[in-house]
Amino acid sequence: MISKETYNEAVKKTLEAFDAAKIVLTEEERNNVEIADFGLNNLEYIGLQLIIYVNTERVCAKEMVLFPGQTCPEHRHPDGVENGIPYVGKQETFRCRAGEVELFVEGERNVGEIELPPTDVTVFHRIVLKAGEQYTLYPNTLHWFRAGKEGAIVSEFSTKSRDDTDIFTDKRIERAPQVG
Amino acid sequence: MISKETYNEAVKKTLEAFDAAKIVLTEEERNNVEIADFGLNNLEYIGLQLIIYVNTERVCAKEMVLFPGQTCPEHRHPDGVENGIPYVGKQETFRCRAGEVELFVEGERNVGEIELPPTDVTVFHRIVLKAGEQYTLYPNTLHWFRAGKEGAIVSEFSTKSRDDTDIFTDKRIERAPQVG
Repeated sequence: MISKETYNEAVKKTLEAFDAAKIVLTEEERNNVEIADFGLNNLEYIGLQLIIYVNTERVCAKEMVLFPGQTCPEHRHPDGVENGIPYVGKQETFRCRAGEVELFVEGERNVGEIELPPTDVTVFHRIVLKAGEQYTLYPNTLHWFRAGKEGAIVSEFSTKSRDDTDIFTDKRIERAPQVG
Repeated sequence: MISKETYNEAVKKTLEAFDAAKIVLTEEERNNVEIADFGLNNLEYIGLQLIIYVNTERVCAKEMVLFPGQTCPEHRHPDGVENGIPYVGKQETFRCRAGEVELFVEGERNVGEIELPPTDVTVFHRIVLKAGEQYTLYPNTLHWFRAGKEGAIVSEFSTKSRDDTDIFTDKRIERAPQVG
């Protein structure tokens, strides 16, 4: 849980980042920025700020802000069953719009010793995305990502998001945001 | 078919529009802008300029530029069969990023007499999208859209694009761009 004060400050910084990148939002969207602290109450280092543009049975698009050095913790999107019907896990493309983001995925480790975030991570195949660059992740692939020193804005284009079914490596994590 | 000169001029204007909106592209993307004149060789009035960010079996995302007053002609995305496997037609969300676009879809006519584009149109339920506004279209729905006086940039988030299967109302249209 994060405090109302931390939440408000994060919303303010998120909207400033969108404004600086000329990403225009409706008033309704500006009033509904999601601040995900993943239940770790350490938003400076671990978290994600986002707007969900659309999320239907077939398509989802989000716009995400990462503060400087902030990490979205390691997770994967598994296959599952919904209302008795099996589905294939989420496929997603991350496109960096501004700033820079390090994306870590499964595969051969291609970095030496790196500064670790304060959350469990186990995959170290690094892809650096600068503005205009993107990477597509297929279902059930472990991944985590971290913004560079200037922060980052990342668009996500994907199949349906079912955030509550994401499997996180760090067992302390709760995906649904709580503010109090 | 459009001339090489018209093509080059359209690419230049498209990149200027993306730059003004702070939409960052890779060099490869800048060198591969698609100029669709729909075979009508009347790009000032009928056409679409676009970058396809990603187009997999499940997800597609595009960034589109419409010049001032330019119309993307009326069409729909039907269900079909590919390699013996039936698929449901494309679902797409248009999100206006800059400028303004009029989107016309099936449904009760909600406009009086309007200036018609120089291509066949049959649906007149108008939705006006300003920057930050969006609309989701489900498969097989006839639609056409036209930029306002300042032009427009529109993001498209969708299921797989199969542009060559689109069904256009104007039978003169050829979707695949030709430059000569």
